[in-house]
Order: sequence, then C-alpha cells, then structure tokens
Amino acid sequence: MSLANRDLVTMDDLSYGEMEAVFSLADEMSDAMAEQLDTCRGKVMASLFFEPSTRTRLSFEAAMHRLGGDVISVSDARASSVAKGESLADTARVVGSYADIIVVRHPWEGAARVVADYADVPVINAGDGGHQHPTQTLCDLFTLKKERKDIRGLKIALWGDLKYGRTIHSLIFALAKFGADILFCPSPGLEVPDNIIRKLTAEYGGQVEHVTAPERTADGAPFPLDAVYMTPSSPHQLAMMPDVNVAVSLEEGVDAIYVTRPQKERFVDDEEGQDLKGKYPVVDKKLLKGKRFERALVMHPLPRVDELAYDVDADPRSMYFKQAARGVPIRMALITMLLGARDISIQAEEDISVLSPDYPVYQRDYGARCPNPACVSTKETEAQYLKSEFRIVSREPLTLRCIYCEHGFQPEYVASTDWHEGRVATKRYHRANSYWARKIKPENLIVFGSVDDAETHGFTYGRHEGTKKVKK
Amino acid sequence: MSLANRDLVTMDDLSYGEMEAVFSLADEMSDAMAEQLDTCRGKVMASLFFEPSTRTRLSFEAAMHRLGGDVISVSDARASSVAKGESLADTARVVGSYADIIVVRHPWEGAARVVADYADVPVINAGDGGHQHPTQTLCDLFTLKKERKDIRGLKIALWGDLKYGRTIHSLIFALAKFGADILFCPSPGLEVPDNIIRKLTAEYGGQVEHVTAPERTADGAPFPLDAVYMTPSSPHQLAMMPDVNVAVSLEEGVDAIYVTRPQKERFVDDEEGQDLKGKYPVVDKKLLKGKRFERALVMHPLPRVDELAYDVDADPRSMYFKQAARGVPIRMALITMLLGARDISIQAEEDISVLSPDYPVYQRDYGARCPNPACVSTKETEAQYLKSEFRIVSREPLTLRCIYCEHGFQPEYVASTDWHEGRVATKRYHRANSYWARKIKPENLIVFGSVDDAETHGFTYGRHEGTKKVKK
Amino acid sequence: MSLANRDLVTMDDLSYGEMEAVFSLADEMSDAMAEQLDTCRGKVMASLFFEPSTRTRLSFEAAMHRLGGDVISVSDARASSVAKGESLADTARVVGSYADIIVVRHPWEGAARVVADYADVPVINAGDGGHQHPTQTLCDLFTLKKERKDIRGLKIALWGDLKYGRTIHSLIFALAKFGADILFCPSPGLEVPDNIIRKLTAEYGGQVEHVTAPERTADGAPFPLDAVYMTPSSPHQLAMMPDVNVAVSLEEGVDAIYVTRPQKERFVDDEEGQDLKGKYPVVDKKLLKGKRFERALVMHPLPRVDELAYDVDADPRSMYFKQAARGVPIRMALITMLLGARDISIQAEEDISVLSPDYPVYQRDYGARCPNPACVSTKETEAQYLKSEFRIVSREPLTLRCIYCEHGFQPEYVASTDWHEGRVATKRYHRANSYWARKIKPENLIVFGSVDDAETHGFTYGRHEGTKKVKK
Repeated sequence: MSLANRDLVTMDDLSYGEMEAVFSLADEMSDAMAEQLDTCRGKVMASLFFEPSTRTRLSFEAAMHRLGGDVISVSDARASSVAKGESLADTARVVGSYADIIVVRHPWEGAARVVADYADVPVINAGDGGHQHPTQTLCDLFTLKKERKDIRGLKIALWGDLKYGRTIHSLIFALAKFGADILFCPSPGLEVPDNIIRKLTAEYGGQVEHVTAPERTADGAPFPLDAVYMTPSSPHQLAMMPDVNVAVSLEEGVDAIYVTRPQKERFVDDEEGQDLKGKYPVVDKKLLKGKRFERALVMHPLPRVDELAYDVDADPRSMYFKQAARGVPIRMALITMLLGARDISIQAEEDISVLSPDYPVYQRDYGARCPNPACVSTKETEAQYLKSEFRIVSREPLTLRCIYCEHGFQPEYVASTDWHEGRVATKRYHRANSYWARKIKPENLIVFGSVDDAETHGFTYGRHEGTKKVKK
Repeated sequence: MSLANRDLVTMDDLSYGEMEAVFSLADEMSDAMAEQLDTCRGKVMASLFFEPSTRTRLSFEAAMHRLGGDVISVSDARASSVAKGESLADTARVVGSYADIIVVRHPWEGAARVVADYADVPVINAGDGGHQHPTQTLCDLFTLKKERKDIRGLKIALWGDLKYGRTIHSLIFALAKFGADILFCPSPGLEVPDNIIRKLTAEYGGQVEHVTAPERTADGAPFPLDAVYMTPSSPHQLAMMPDVNVAVSLEEGVDAIYVTRPQKERFVDDEEGQDLKGKYPVVDKKLLKGKRFERALVMHPLPRVDELAYDVDADPRSMYFKQAARGVPIRMALITMLLGARDISIQAEEDISVLSPDYPVYQRDYGARCPNPACVSTKETEAQYLKSEFRIVSREPLTLRCIYCEHGFQPEYVASTDWHEGRVATKRYHRANSYWARKIKPENLIVFGSVDDAETHGFTYGRHEGTKKVKK
Repeated sequence: MSLANRDLVTMDDLSYGEMEAVFSLADEMSDAMAEQLDTCRGKVMASLFFEPSTRTRLSFEAAMHRLGGDVISVSDARASSVAKGESLADTARVVGSYADIIVVRHPWEGAARVVADYADVPVINAGDGGHQHPTQTLCDLFTLKKERKDIRGLKIALWGDLKYGRTIHSLIFALAKFGADILFCPSPGLEVPDNIIRKLTAEYGGQVEHVTAPERTADGAPFPLDAVYMTPSSPHQLAMMPDVNVAVSLEEGVDAIYVTRPQKERFVDDEEGQDLKGKYPVVDKKLLKGKRFERALVMHPLPRVDELAYDVDADPRSMYFKQAARGVPIRMALITMLLGARDISIQAEEDISVLSPDYPVYQRDYGARCPNPACVSTKETEAQYLKSEFRIVSREPLTLRCIYCEHGFQPEYVASTDWHEGRVATKRYHRANSYWARKIKPENLIVFGSVDDAETHGFTYGRHEGTKKVKK
C-alpha cells in the first residue's frame, strides 16, 4: 500500500491505520537520522508560506533536508506574485510543475484544498486560516503516543481559543479517530464552532455533553470546562451510560491539557479581543498543582504568548518543546510517504474507518455563497474560477457545508428547479423550514442567502405560505 | 565552443545558434531529469530578487537544485543591505565573491547590466524594470518551437501592455532573430516604445508597417492591431512586396497570441491606469472562436490578472502553464552552459548574425543624463560611481541610447570640444538639428538636456544662428 | 582539542590560539574549496536574521553549502513567529531541535547570548544590535594577517562611528588580544563607549591615552584622532614609557584604517543624526595621499554609504572586497570547528590568555534593571523569563555590567540584605558613593536605579547620612 500522490488537507485524509504508519516511520527515522540522506535525494519541495511562520516552515524544510531533498521557499506573501494579484489556482499549477511536493500555509480557510485541487503533485496543508493544521496534529498525537503508549481512552482537555485555533480543529477529529475523550475548556466566547461539533458527532460517532456552570469550578482551581466529547469506542461512553457523572469522571484527572494562544490575528472584531482581557485562562505552576492535573501532560502547539507561564518549562509534564522537536521526524515520515519513497503496510480490515456519509452535493452558479468571510471561495481573485460548492449535511434543519472551509450554515430560503424550469409562473421560493422545502430533492435544491438574493434571480415568495410578501 | 562566464542581460547576448543550443540541452535534460544531479554539484547560485516574484525565482532555484547545485537567496529588498543604502556595484562585487553565478531581478532598468559589469561571475537578468526579461523569452520561444517545430515565418500577435511589458521587449528581438512576423496589438496608450521599434528595424532588419484604423476590426472580433513587423527572412517581406495587404495576410490567421497583463506597478502616472478601465483587450473563449485564432497558441508569461479568462484554461490551445513548466529545463540548460559545465557545438558559419552596428560611444562627466526616470544610472546610490554613457545610434535626428536601460532620446542642444578647448570665447552651443551640429565629430560631441544645462557649464548660444538668446 | 558545541557570542569566546586555528583552517579550505563538500554533509544550519542583511547571511549560507551542508533560513522578522509575540528563548529551544547549528542576527543587544543559553546546539552571533559582530572581526583579522603576516605591533586606526558600530566593538578586543595598537578616530559624538574602554584596560591590559586637540590635525589632513590604545605586548607601551609622544608615533604612519558607516538605524535620537551632517570624516583618494596613510590598508565591513569614496576602489590598498570575500572560508572554518567536524591542535601553554577576572555576580528579582534601552533583558517578551543579571566590575565607583548587552552603569543607590533581613527597621538605602556602601559584601548588595525604586521596595533613606529625605 502506498500514500504516494495523496494530499493531506484535513484530518479526514488519513485513516487511523495510515496515521499509525506515519508514527511508525517517524520512530524508525528518529533512531537513524543520519541514514536518511538518500531517501528523497533529487526531490524538490516547495514551501509556500503566505502567512508568518517560523516553526512549521523551518521544521518542514529541515525535514526535507534531512531526507536529502531540496527546498524552494516563499516566506512572505508580499514578496511574491500574490502581490500582483495572482490566484491560488495559477500559483498551484505553476509551482506544481517545478516541485515534487508542495507545503502550503495561507490565511484563507480552504486555501490548501484549492492548491491540492490544482497542483499535479501531493499537497500538505501547513495551516489554512482558522480551519485545520493536520501536521501539527500528527506531532501532537505522536507525542501522546510516545508518552502514554495508547491514546485510546485518554482524557484530553483542550484549553483556550477553541474557536480560531486550527490546531484544535484538526486535533479534535484525530483524537476522536484514536478513541480519546475530549474536555472542551474554552476561554469564554472562544468555544468550538458548531460545525465542528456537528461533524464530530455525525461522522465520528460518540456524543457531546454540555457541562453546566457549577461543575466548572469543582476543587477550586479554574477549570473552564464547557463540554465533554466521549468517543464511541470509549468504555464509559455516554450514549451507553446516560447517567455517567462527568464531574466524577473528572476527579480521576486528565491525561493531557492542550493549551493554545488566543489567535488574535483571526478575531473578526475588536470586541473579541476586549472580551479576553484578564479572562483568558492561564496555565501555570499553580494551576498544575491541582489533583486533576497530577499526571497531565502539558501540551501547546507554540508559539505561546501569556497563556502558558515560563514556570512550567522545567516541569517534567511540559511537552511543548518535545512536540516541536518531533515535528522533524513526523514531517520526514509524511513527506517520504507522500513522495512514494517508502510504501506502508496496513491491514485494511484492521483499519478503523470513519463514517464519511455520502452527502449530496449542492453547486449552482447563483444563489447563496459561503457566508464565512475567511473562506477562500469568497475572495476576489479566487471567485473568478471557483464555484461555491456545498455538501447537504442535514435536511432538518437544512444545513450546507462549504467544501473548501467546511463552514456550515443554514440558509433561510429555498426553491426547487423542478417547480419552475421553463415555467416562470412557478419560480417560487420558500422558507427553508417550511413544509414545501422538505419535499425538494437534493438535485433540485436552490438555496438563497436572503430575500433579495432570491428576488434578484426572479423568484417570488411561495403562494403556499400566503401571498404576502416577506418583509426584508 | 562554450558559453562559460558569459552574461545574459538582453537578447543581444545570445545568437540564434546559441539559443538553439540552449533549447537542445533543455530538451535533453527534460528527458533525463533525474540524471542531472551531478551536473552542477558544488556550485552556488545567488538568487537576488529585489522585486516581487514567485515563478521566476522558484523556477531558477528549482533548476539549480535539479542540477545538484545550491542556492543563496534574497527575496525581499527590504530585508537586505539595500535597506542600508548599498549600491548595486557593491552588492554585485561582494555576492560575486560568494557565488558561482548570479541571477538578478530589480525594479530599475539597466540594473542587471550594472551587476554584470561589477560581478566576477556570470550574471543572468531575471527582469530589470520594464527593460528586458530574456529567460522568459527563452521559455516562450522553446514553447513555440516544441509546438510548431519551426518559428521562422510564424505570425505572432503581441497583445496588451507592449509599453511596460519587459517580456514583450525581449520577445520582440528574439522573434526577429528567428524570422517570425510580429503583429503589435497594444491596449490603447500602451504601444511599443519607439526606441524598440528603432532598434528592431535598424539592427535586426525588416520593416514595421503601421496599420490604419479600419483594418483593426475586420471580421467583427476586437483585434487591436496597431503595426506589423515583417522580418527580412520572411517570404512575404513587406520591403520586397510593398503592396502586400496586411489584412489579407491576417485572414490566414495568427500562429500565436501572446497576452500580457497591464504592468500597473510601472505606470508613471495615474492617468495610464485610468485609461485602461474597460479598454484593456480581454482574451477569452469568445474571442478565440474567431477564424483568425483557429490555430493560435494562447501564450502568457503569467501572472495574469483579468486580461486572460479562466475559460481558456481547458482549451488545448492554451500554452501558458506549459511555458511556465518549461522554465525549469530551460533555466537548467542556461545555468549549465554559463557555468561551463557543458560545452556546445555551433557551426559559426551557420549561425545567424544580427547587425550590431559599431555605434560611437558618448560619455562625459557633465551634460545630458539619461531622461528615463526608471534608469539605474539616474538613481542616487548608483550615480556616485556610474557615469552616463550612451551610444550615438543616429545623427539625423541625433539620437542617443543609454547603455544601461537602452532608452533612446534626442537631445535638444549640442556643442563640440574642438570649438572651445582652451578658448572660452568659442564655447558655443547649438540646436541639435542645426547645420553646425551635423559637422561635430562623435568624439567631440557634447550634448545638453536643456539651455540651463548648457549655460551652467559656461556655454553660450551659438552666434552662427544669431545672437538672440534662446528663450527657456 | 575541539571547539565542538562551543558558542561564539563575543570575542571573549575565542582565545588567541583558537582564532589562529580558525585562520589556519580557513587558509587550508580556501586552497581546496571544491574538496569540502563532504565536511558537513547531512548537517543543517539555521540562519535566523531578524534584522536586514545581505552580506553576512549570504556568506554564512554560501559557507554551509560549500561544506556540503543544508540551510534553513529566516530573513525577515515580520514573516516569522516573532510577529506573533514569541520570545527568543522559545525560538532558540525549538530551532535548536531542528538544526545542528544556529547563526543569529538580532537588533537587540545580548540577543545572541539568550539564544546561546537556550538552544542545545552551537550558536554564532552574526550581530546583536550595537553590541558585537565577532565573525566580521575574524574576517578583518584574517585580512590583516594575510596582508601583513603579523598583527602584533600594527597600528590600526578605527574610523567613524565607534559608538554604535558593533564590528568596531568586536574588533577592539580582538586587536588587543593580537597585540595591535589602536588609534580611535571617531566622528564627533560617536566615540567608543566607556564600558568598552573600561573592559579593554581592565581585562586586556594596556592603556588608553586621550589625545588633545592640537595633535588631531597634524600635517593638515583631517585625522580625527581621539585616543590611542597601546597593548601591553607592544614595545612602545605607554605604561612603560609614559613620555612617548603619540604624535611622533603617528608620523610613522598607520598600518590600516578601518572605516565604518554611521549606524543611523541605531541612533537614539534625531540629534545624533543632525550632528553628523557634513562632519562625518570621509575617506577618499585625497585623504589617502597623506604620508600617514602611505602603507595603510583601507578596510571597511560594508555596506558603505558616503563615508568611503568609490575613487578608492581601484587603489591596491583597498581591502574591503577582500574582507568580504574572505567571509566564506572564515565562516566555513568556524562552522566546521563548532560542529566538531574537525579538531584543532593548540598548545595550551602557548596560548595567550586574557585576564578574565572572576567578577562577583549580582542578580535580584527587584531593583535596578539594565538601563540600556536596546538590551534584550529590557524587552517585554523577554522580561517574562530573563532576570536582570550583572557582574560587579568595579567597587569604586560601583559599576555593574549587564551579562547580556555588556553595558556598564553606575547605580546611584544601594542597600544591603544583611542590614534588614527580618528587621524592617533597618531597610535603609544609601548613596552608592557613600562610606556605608563600600562596606557591603557583594553577595549582600542591592542596587536601586532611583529613589522611587528603593522606596517602592520599602526602603528608607539611610540615617547615617542624615534623616532628611532625598529630594527626588
């Protein structure tokens, strides 16, 4: 079996068995670093960083060099053709003809998907806005595995900015795939986005239980617990044991606390920044004295700002520098496998498959566009060639998920092509939660972002729900 | 024969035979990419990009890596010593002592010439302001050759910004050298500069015929044809057949349409930008349906903005991604040859020589300077050590061409050293188009940019043309 | 003997014998450049340039490539995690886990020391603010040695900005170690800082004699001589021959004039820039015609601006392009030795040791901080984990030297821990020059930057000197 020519854009792109294969090769390479110089000799990696980075770019580049390969690198968007208004698709196609593999970081969500779609070579997402950062997650899991042997059944607290932290988003799905339980401990206002919770429960199984206020502060120490995810493979699965007491389970302590900095560069308005002042939960020596954290690994994707105190650095539970250091062998293993320089053996029947439902596709030239302002499909240079495209992930309520940024949204108005094709009189639109809406077949569905959007395209409000025009 | 230690600053630096040798080596290397890793092993290329670039820099760097060589790179002028006010000559001398070959891109016209003059190693111009970009032209020609076998006699339409497009300027001379006919189709106001037309006809032979308005719109489709260049080697050479009907010839269709984006970053004033709005000719699927474009290759140096529609990408006539991809083998071949890692065989007698007239040189410490504000010789850091230097390319009208930026200009006033040396009374200056001016020997010529310029240097207006002082 | 795993932060880090070993290996490598490709094969150098550079970064990177090693590079602080507020310690720890050696340039003084303290691999200072730039000094000394064989006894004039020129600061100590005499020729207002003079005389021996005004302009030519340093190993040592006439000694001429540009980017206020206008001493052909400069090598670390005229370039005495070119073999030798790829042999007994007094250490969580605004220890991101730390280099007057930036300062107020521990009544502070102050043991010393600083910490002004409160 081979991973050659595959892309790694989101955690969906790697099965459990494939991740284990990456860890196994990373382990092998760590132990024989100096012997890898011929592994990718003659191969060229393009490292396209359109957003500031030190750690990720340098560790990818160091990994490629330690494999004997070469690197061509863009480290500043302002010094590239992007400054001249070039689209991602053009950049991808051209760079894909120079290099054997592309690593891309970009501020737009879904950018890595576009690069993967247009380049002829394997593409690795090194972070796309607030969406995902799968190689960081591989480093995180590899560290958990090295320190705790088995990730299954571990209780991992995710701490801080769970809204914009792309490393968090990737990690959630990976932990679910490995059968860990997740404790969501967000800074107020920076909770995990709904679309992630929805995907997690619908596609990965398990259940999310929201935690009520009083439980949050048990044992005095601040513990901003907001929700708990319990995987289906976990023995104390909530779905099976509905009375499980989350607080009791917490008393046993967490296995790891995964801290993140507030991703201020992605905050949509100043308010979000203001809200943080003095409220962001700080992890320091004092917090870690609590019994719940007795055996907790302290993890952080770095860089840190103020949320993780320097007094933790000397603590044997601190893992963040180890996570960073493991970035090199993990990325060496991944690059090697995507370049097809090494095959892997996975018993397909042993692999843990994730439910990837065959959601219907929604794509039209007009009507609703992705409402996420950070989505690549909404950007001027990209809208020239990218059509909005969604998966219909739920009918009640009607929910569409952008194929680029994976943002989910519930359109307010719908229509059907079989009501009006050729017959203007029946170009009617309805509320998405109406009786009529539920009867539209996916392939006939038209969604509108607003009344204006619908009426601009010549639709009128459905008579079945009355003749009064909807107020805008 | 060897190209070792040669520079490539303008298309004048390579003969027809040498270009064919580059293409032949590029072909050979394309077919055996993996076997080139020892070709330039141990060699270091300095890649100095003082202006934004992705494509060109990355393809040069990928080329060097595929040859087994190494790269040191500057991709942002603001992060280099240029920010401390260093001159190009100093940068060139120093970097020339670190690296075996230098590739330079710079916003100033003539900058690559200065680097070539001061560095002790081969220098390749990767674009100097609006002047030239010879390696892009090699990719363009290589693509024409691969697709059409023989470039001689092809009809190539150059489309869009012919004024500031440096790739256009390099391509014009190269097409002439290969015996192609050129159709100039500029966006209004962005016509080919006069100095290029002058050099083309005077040094490359052939003739340029301006096209009158009615012919521009034959067959309905927009075709902003402005002028046609017919090479002397072309069978339907205008000079030999003065009645040739350009419109008829066009009816046979063009072989390639070479599209360029408006080089807005070089526009001298806002007006040029304003003039473009809605007027810049767009190449799209609809335009290409015209009979004239039936077999036309669609070429573009990239990046594109709006002038080339995405709906052309899937058309088999679209060549721009191929042009880009061919940048790697072309640059591999060129680097190999300039580093002397491979000799070439050209039968000198078979080579097509270009008329390179032995123009007299004009150089003085005072008097007219190059009037091109983008010329390297006019910049503060460079004027400390660079003297203005020109070739006298015509006497009637008196025309000087800057040796750096190749901008041509016609000075208004002249004087002669043999009229006044030691005799102040005869320090007279005259109008450049006067009877007296024509009698001055090139070695005695002094030119002035203005009356002020002349009088500041102690000259007075020539008595032979009256005693009245010229009005400023 | 081996230099493996050593850092090079200041010139104190290399003994005379070790520098000679670097020069000897550089010589050997220059002569066999093409044979070094396996010397550091498989090793990765991180090149972290948080301040603009061309020369230094490119020569380090070229050196690593010529040794067969690879490079990961940051050339713009704005495009790195520093932009997200990461501390130097975190960057150092992480990058030290990717690379085998780190080269760092940073605008903050003492930054390289912090990187060396926190990274697990050898660290080379490539310039830290106005502090030091030791590898430039190695190029300078290597050039002196190649041109003059023996540096001992040479008279070297340091010219221009002796205040902010970090190459000057490193060179001063190195010249002293090699037994050269130094003529300080500063631009007015840009004299060598006191802390450097103090360290030079206290730790390197020899003596500094200030030159009175009339001597500065002997023989007409501008010669802004301000002070002369005579090394103890010099035969005409001032200490031994107190009547030596500096002017007479100058008549014999200088061996080298080391010119520097005004480091305008480090000027603290506009005034310093204003003062320079027209006063900065320019070195040109005319100046060098003077008898004193007859055999003077003209040196400059580059980049130059206006202080060194282009008319000197063709003069055989000009050394600056040779200095730059020698940067590659010098850095190759240094990298090789710090990576332990080659051992060196130095007879320890033959080595010239420098007096490195065992100064008492001063470190407290409160009280005076380093008053140098460019010092790394005063920066917000670094103050989270760095404690101020000083060496007590003198008791009369009481002088502390920051261990990071080496800036020296004389605190105004002091107290002693043995006067007050457990007894609030005796928490008194005194003037640093008082009788009581002199009696405090180093380990008990507390220093305060101001009256406020002292009183904020609960100290009151010492009764022994009266009960009146000191006016703020």
